Amino acid sequence: MSFNSFGRVFRFTTWGESHGPAIGVVVDGCPPGLSLSEADIQPWLDKRRPGQSRFTTQRQEPDQVRILSGVFEGRTTGTPISLMIDNVDQRSKDYSDVAQAYRPGHADYAYDAKYGFRDYRGGGRSSARETASRVAASAVARLVIPEVTIRAWVSEVGGDAIANFDADQIAANPFFCPDPEAAARWEASIDAARKAGSSLGAVVECEATGVPAGWGAPLYAKLDSELAAAAMSINAVKGVEIGDGFAAARLRGEENADRMRPGTGAPDFDSNHAGGIAGGISTGQPVRLRVAFKPTSSILTPVETVTRSGEAAEIATKGRHDPCVGIRGVPVVEAMMALVLADQKLLHRAQCG
Amino acid sequence: MSFNSFGRVFRFTTWGESHGPAIGVVVDGCPPGLSLSEADIQPWLDKRRPGQSRFTTQRQEPDQVRILSGVFEGRTTGTPISLMIDNVDQRSKDYSDVAQAYRPGHADYAYDAKYGFRDYRGGGRSSARETASRVAASAVARLVIPEVTIRAWVSEVGGDAIANFDADQIAANPFFCPDPEAAARWEASIDAARKAGSSLGAVVECEATGVPAGWGAPLYAKLDSELAAAAMSINAVKGVEIGDGFAAARLRGEENADRMRPGTGAPDFDSNHAGGIAGGISTGQPVRLRVAFKPTSSILTPVETVTRSGEAAEIATKGRHDPCVGIRGVPVVEAMMALVLADQKLLHRAQCG
Amino acid sequence: MSFNSFGRVFRFTTWGESHGPAIGVVVDGCPPGLSLSEADIQPWLDKRRPGQSRFTTQRQEPDQVRILSGVFEGRTTGTPISLMIDNVDQRSKDYSDVAQAYRPGHADYAYDAKYGFRDYRGGGRSSARETASRVAASAVARLVIPEVTIRAWVSEVGGDAIANFDADQIAANPFFCPDPEAAARWEASIDAARKAGSSLGAVVECEATGVPAGWGAPLYAKLDSELAAAAMSINAVKGVEIGDGFAAARLRGEENADRMRPGTGAPDFDSNHAGGIAGGISTGQPVRLRVAFKPTSSILTPVETVTRSGEAAEIATKGRHDPCVGIRGVPVVEAMMALVLADQKLLHRAQCG
Amino acid sequence: MSFNSFGRVFRFTTWGESHGPAIGVVVDGCPPGLSLSEADIQPWLDKRRPGQSRFTTQRQEPDQVRILSGVFEGRTTGTPISLMIDNVDQRSKDYSDVAQAYRPGHADYAYDAKYGFRDYRGGGRSSARETASRVAASAVARLVIPEVTIRAWVSEVGGDAIANFDADQIAANPFFCPDPEAAARWEASIDAARKAGSSLGAVVECEATGVPAGWGAPLYAKLDSELAAAAMSINAVKGVEIGDGFAAARLRGEENADRMRPGTGAPDFDSNHAGGIAGGISTGQPVRLRVAFKPTSSILTPVETVTRSGEAAEIATKGRHDPCVGIRGVPVVEAMMALVLADQKLLHRAQCG
Repeated sequence: MSFNSFGRVFRFTTWGESHGPAIGVVVDGCPPGLSLSEADIQPWLDKRRPGQSRFTTQRQEPDQVRILSGVFEGRTTGTPISLMIDNVDQRSKDYSDVAQAYRPGHADYAYDAKYGFRDYRGGGRSSARETASRVAASAVARLVIPEVTIRAWVSEVGGDAIANFDADQIAANPFFCPDPEAAARWEASIDAARKAGSSLGAVVECEATGVPAGWGAPLYAKLDSELAAAAMSINAVKGVEIGDGFAAARLRGEENADRMRPGTGAPDFDSNHAGGIAGGISTGQPVRLRVAFKPTSSILTPVETVTRSGEAAEIATKGRHDPCVGIRGVPVVEAMMALVLADQKLLHRAQCG
Repeated sequence: MSFNSFGRVFRFTTWGESHGPAIGVVVDGCPPGLSLSEADIQPWLDKRRPGQSRFTTQRQEPDQVRILSGVFEGRTTGTPISLMIDNVDQRSKDYSDVAQAYRPGHADYAYDAKYGFRDYRGGGRSSARETASRVAASAVARLVIPEVTIRAWVSEVGGDAIANFDADQIAANPFFCPDPEAAARWEASIDAARKAGSSLGAVVECEATGVPAGWGAPLYAKLDSELAAAAMSINAVKGVEIGDGFAAARLRGEENADRMRPGTGAPDFDSNHAGGIAGGISTGQPVRLRVAFKPTSSILTPVETVTRSGEAAEIATKGRHDPCVGIRGVPVVEAMMALVLADQKLLHRAQCG
Repeated sequence: MSFNSFGRVFRFTTWGESHGPAIGVVVDGCPPGLSLSEADIQPWLDKRRPGQSRFTTQRQEPDQVRILSGVFEGRTTGTPISLMIDNVDQRSKDYSDVAQAYRPGHADYAYDAKYGFRDYRGGGRSSARETASRVAASAVARLVIPEVTIRAWVSEVGGDAIANFDADQIAANPFFCPDPEAAARWEASIDAARKAGSSLGAVVECEATGVPAGWGAPLYAKLDSELAAAAMSINAVKGVEIGDGFAAARLRGEENADRMRPGTGAPDFDSNHAGGIAGGISTGQPVRLRVAFKPTSSILTPVETVTRSGEAAEIATKGRHDPCVGIRGVPVVEAMMALVLADQKLLHRAQCG
Repeated sequence: MSFNSFGRVFRFTTWGESHGPAIGVVVDGCPPGLSLSEADIQPWLDKRRPGQSRFTTQRQEPDQVRILSGVFEGRTTGTPISLMIDNVDQRSKDYSDVAQAYRPGHADYAYDAKYGFRDYRGGGRSSARETASRVAASAVARLVIPEVTIRAWVSEVGGDAIANFDADQIAANPFFCPDPEAAARWEASIDAARKAGSSLGAVVECEATGVPAGWGAPLYAKLDSELAAAAMSINAVKGVEIGDGFAAARLRGEENADRMRPGTGAPDFDSNHAGGIAGGISTGQPVRLRVAFKPTSSILTPVETVTRSGEAAEIATKGRHDPCVGIRGVPVVEAMMALVLADQKLLHRAQCG
C-alpha cells in the first residue's frame, strides 16, 4: 500500500529529495545468496548519471552508491538491501522564483494543492533525481533474472524517428540512438532547442529477451499492467505501449494475429504484435515496451503562470536541465523493466513452483 | 498483493470465468452510509451488456446483478459488498478446437505455459466477460465520488478517427461515437469486417471532470500510474496515454506548457496537455485518458497455429464475438476511471485529512 | 490493504453477514492443478457447523458450500476460487432490542461509533458466522500444504484444564477435548452455565506438524506474527501464545533453551519451548499455538447498558447462542493455521526457490 | 507485501543489521505539515538505548538519529521520511563460535535453514538492534496521534509480579517498574541471574488512553489483530493479550461484560475487560495490551547444540547482553502501539471521513 514502494515480492521503497543530503532505496524480498557489491550497481548509475554531455543537465553528481545492509561476505542475505547515494552538487542558488510561482508542466501547483506546501528546491521529491534510486535497485533486480537481457534506446526525438536499427550504435552516441544518421540530426535539433531556451520530447523503446513464457499474474497483476504502471511512474512520461500499442488499433484481426508454428520446445511465432504478452502473461517472445516522454518542462523561455497567492506572473527556469529529458529516461525505463520482471519471476515461482 | 484485486483503500476483487455458473466482485473499503441498491448498478451493466446490436457479440446475457452483502436498509455498511451476476447464455458448443489448439492473439498458450492447463470454455478467466464485474464495482465507486463526472467515447475505429465532438451523440449510436458522420462510416466498416470474418481495433477516450486538485500519491501510486495500470488490465488494451500522450513527445517545451492565469479560487489553465495530472497528482483540470484496443483476436478467418502437443494446425474462432471489442470497452474504461478515482480520493483523505 | 482480506500470496477475502442471503470467500493465489471439489471442503464446514449438540447454538445451518469459480475439470486453475454458503436459518425474530441498545461485550457500540449505523440482525458482519468462510478457505489451503498435519483441541473450559492428552479422544466428544475426564466435567459446567443464562470461556491449542524449517519471513511477516494476527482476528479471542507463551516469561534462560543434538538431516531438539518458531522462522519442530476465547457475550442474564440515544437500559440476549464459543473455535483456529502456513510456504518459495 | 514493512497507510520499512554500518527506517504515508526534527525523535531512542545501567547490555551506542528526507523547513512534506542511525560500537570480537554453531533460542538455525547462510555477527538482521528503527519511526507516529497518550511498564520479571501501580515510579528505576518494592526485588533477582550466567523473562503492559471510539477495521485489519501482529514481531515475544487476555477465558459471561451507563457524549463503561476493543474496533476506553518476553537466549551458561555441519557442540554466548531483555522491550512495545494507532487513525479517516 505504500505510496513510495513498488513491487509485490521483490519490492523496493525509495526516499529522498533533489536537494536533501542523500537519496536512497530499500530493496526487500531479494533472494539470498546472490553475489552483490557496489561494483555491480555503479555501472548502471553511471549510465544514467547527469553531466556527461552537453545534451544533459550540467549538474555534476558522482552518484556513488553505498550498500548499507542486506549483503554479507559479498552475497545477499535475503534481508533488506539499503542503498544510499549522497547528493553532492546541490547548487546554492536562489529559489525565490520557484518558491513563489508555479512552473507550468511541473508538479509545483499540484504538490501545493495536495500537501499545503512543498520543498521547492530543485523540485523536491518530484525531481527526476529520484530515478537514480530506481536504477540502483534495478541492478539488484538484474541479478534475480540472469536469463533476461534488457535493452532500451531512443527511437524518436522531437518527432524525428530513427530509420534504421543497429544495436551496436546505441552506446556510441550520447542519445542512446541506434541509428547514426538520426543521432546526427538529433545533435543539431537538441542543440538548437537548448539554445532557443526550449526543449524536446522523445520516445524510448525497451525490449527484454529471454523472458520465459508464464510470467505475469492475471488479472490485476498482469505483466503489461505492471509495466504500464512502472513506466507511467517515471517523471515526464505521458504514454505507454506494449507491442504495437496504438498502431494495433489500426490493424485488422488477421494482421494483428501472431501466428504460431511448431518450434523446438515452444512454438515459433511469425510476428510479435503483442509485444510478448498475451492475457497479461509472457509468451516467451521478446517483451516490447514503448514510452513517450514529454519535453522538459524546465525551459528558459518565460511562460505565464500564477504565484502561490494567486497573482499573475511569468517564470523562466534558469537551473541546469536536460534539453531532452527522454534521453536520460533510457536507463530508467530499463530499470523499471528489470524491476517488474524480477518481481514477476518470483511471483510466478510462488504460485506455480 | 492479490492477483485479482485492484485498489488500495477502496479495493475490489473479481472472480469467475466465462462459462462458470456466475461471476462476481467483492468491493472492500467502501465508506458507510451511501445509498445503494441493485438499481444503482444495473444501468451501468446494461450499458456494457452484449447482444444489443449487430456490432457486438450475440451472446445474450441479462447481466442481472444481485447484492449479497454490505448493504443494510438501503445503505452501505462499510463492510464488504458482494455482487454476483449469473452466467446464463453459456452455449453448449463444441470446444474441442480451442481445447486442442492455441488461438493466436488470445491467452490460450500463455495460460497453458503458466498453469499447465486452462479452462478453455470461452476463454475461461481471460474472457472479457470479467469486465462486467468491474463495471458492477464501478457503480459503487461512483457513489464515493459524486463530485466527478466521467464520460468515455470511441474516437477511432480501424484507424478512422472522429472529426467532430458532440457529447449528445455518444448515446445516440451503437458505437459511443460523438461524431455522427464517423458513426455512419464505422457502421459500414465494422459490418464489412464482420462479414469478411475479420475485426477492427479502436481507440477509446475518457474524461473525468470535477476531480479536485490534490488526488494522487507520488511516487508509485501516482494517479496516472494507477490509471495506466487500470487501463492496461482491460482485455485487448495495448496502449495508454494521459493527456497528449505520445503527441506530447512531438511538442516543444513551450508548446506543451499548460500556462496558468489567476482564476477564482484556483488558477485557470490555458490548455490541458498534461491531461489534468502533474507529478502524479491531479491539478483540478479534466483528467484525460486514451486507450488503444487491438482488433478482436477471435476471427472467422483461419490462422496458422499449433496444438497443445506442438503440431501445426489452423484455427478459426466460430463463437459469438465482437467485431470491434473496443466499442464495448467504453463502459469498462469509464469503470476503471471511477474505481481509480474513488480509491485515490480515500487515499488522499487518509493522508491529508 | 483490504480490510477483509488476509494473506500475501495465498490470500482470501471474505464477505457476508449473519442474516444476509449468503456468505462467502474468494481465495486468490492458489497454485494450479490441485484436485478440488465441494467434497474436499464440506467435511471441514461440517466440523464447525452449529446445532450439532446442545453445547452449541441451535441455529440450524446446513452450510452447504458451492464452488463458483477457479476449478475446471476437478482441478484448481490458478484463478480465484469463489466459495459461497447460503444462509438458511435466519429466524425472523424481533431485533428491536438489539437495534436500540448496545449489547455489552459485543461490537454493537463500536460499529455504531465507527460507521454511524449497523446491521443489527444477528450481529451483522461481526457475527462468528463469518468464520465459516475461513473454514471453507482453509480446505483449499490444506491442499497447498499436504506435508503438514494440523490438530487443535480445547485444553481449558471456564478455567478447568485438561490433565491428560489422548489425541483419539478429541473427536469422541462434543468439546474437542483430548481428556475424557475433563470432557465429563465440562459437560456439567457448560450445562450449568447455559441453564444459568451465563457462558464460559475456553482455551484452544493447535499444533502443526510437518512444517519444514525455513517458513516465515522476518521481520514483519514473521510466522508467529502472522499467526498472532490470524488468531486475534477470530471472534472472541483475547490472547495468543506461541510455544510456552506467557509461561516462557517465568522461565530462566537455560530452562527455556531448546537444546539441539545431532539428528538425521536436521538437528534433534530436546524441547520445544519456542513452539517451532525462532526469529519468526519455522525450525522444523511442531508449530504450537494457544488461543484464549472469552466467554460468549450473548447471555440470558440481563446486563446494564445504554441505548443508541444514550439512555440507560438493560439487555438480555435471547437468540440462539453457544454457551462456550471457544469450543466451536477449534476448527476456526485450525483453519487460520492452515491459511497462514499455506501462504508462508508460497512466500518462502517465492524468495528462496 | 513487503517482508520488512508494517502498516497500511502510515507504513514503515526497516533495514540494517547489528554489525552493519548503520540501521534505518523509511516512514511512508505520514501526513504533511507536522513539525518534526531530530529533537522529536532522540528522546524515544534514548529511552531504549542500551548501556544505561548494569541491567542492560553494555554495548555503547549513541543511537544518534539523522533525518535524511521528508522534512522541509521543519515540517513533514508528506513524502518518505528516511531516518538513519549509525552503528558505532561494533566490537571486533571473535565470532567463530557463533559462525559455526547454532545458539539455542536464537534464530541462527532457522536463518541458515531458510536462506542457506546468515550474517552471524551479533545476530545480523535478527538482532534486537532493529527495534531502534521502530522506536525512531514511532516518534513520527506519535505526531499523527496527539490525542493519544501511551504508557508501558514492566509488570513481571521472572514470575515476580508488581503488587502496586504508581505511574510516577515507572521512570524512577531502571526497570520501568511502577512498584518500588518490586523494583527492589527485581534488582536483586536480575543481578543474581546475570552473575549466574542466566537470564529472566518479563511481562510488559501497555495502555493507550485518548483513543476515540471507531478506530480499527474489521475483519482482517482489526485493531487487536494489528496489535497482536505488531507485538509478536518484536524479538523475544511469545505471548500477547488484549484486555484480560487469557484471564478472560476463566471469567463467566456476566463477569466479563463491560456494562455501560449513560455518560457525557459517549457511554461510561463500568469495567474494561475488553481492553478497549470490541469487534476489532476501539470503544473509547483505554486500549490495553500485555506482552510476554522470554528470557534472553544469550546466556553465559553453556548449552548443548549442533554445528553447521551437524556435529554436537556446546555454546555459551559471551557477548554483551541484556540479562532481562523484556525491560528494554518497554519503549519498543510503546513504539508498536503508536505505529499501529497512527495507521488505524488514517485508515479510519480514509473510509469514514
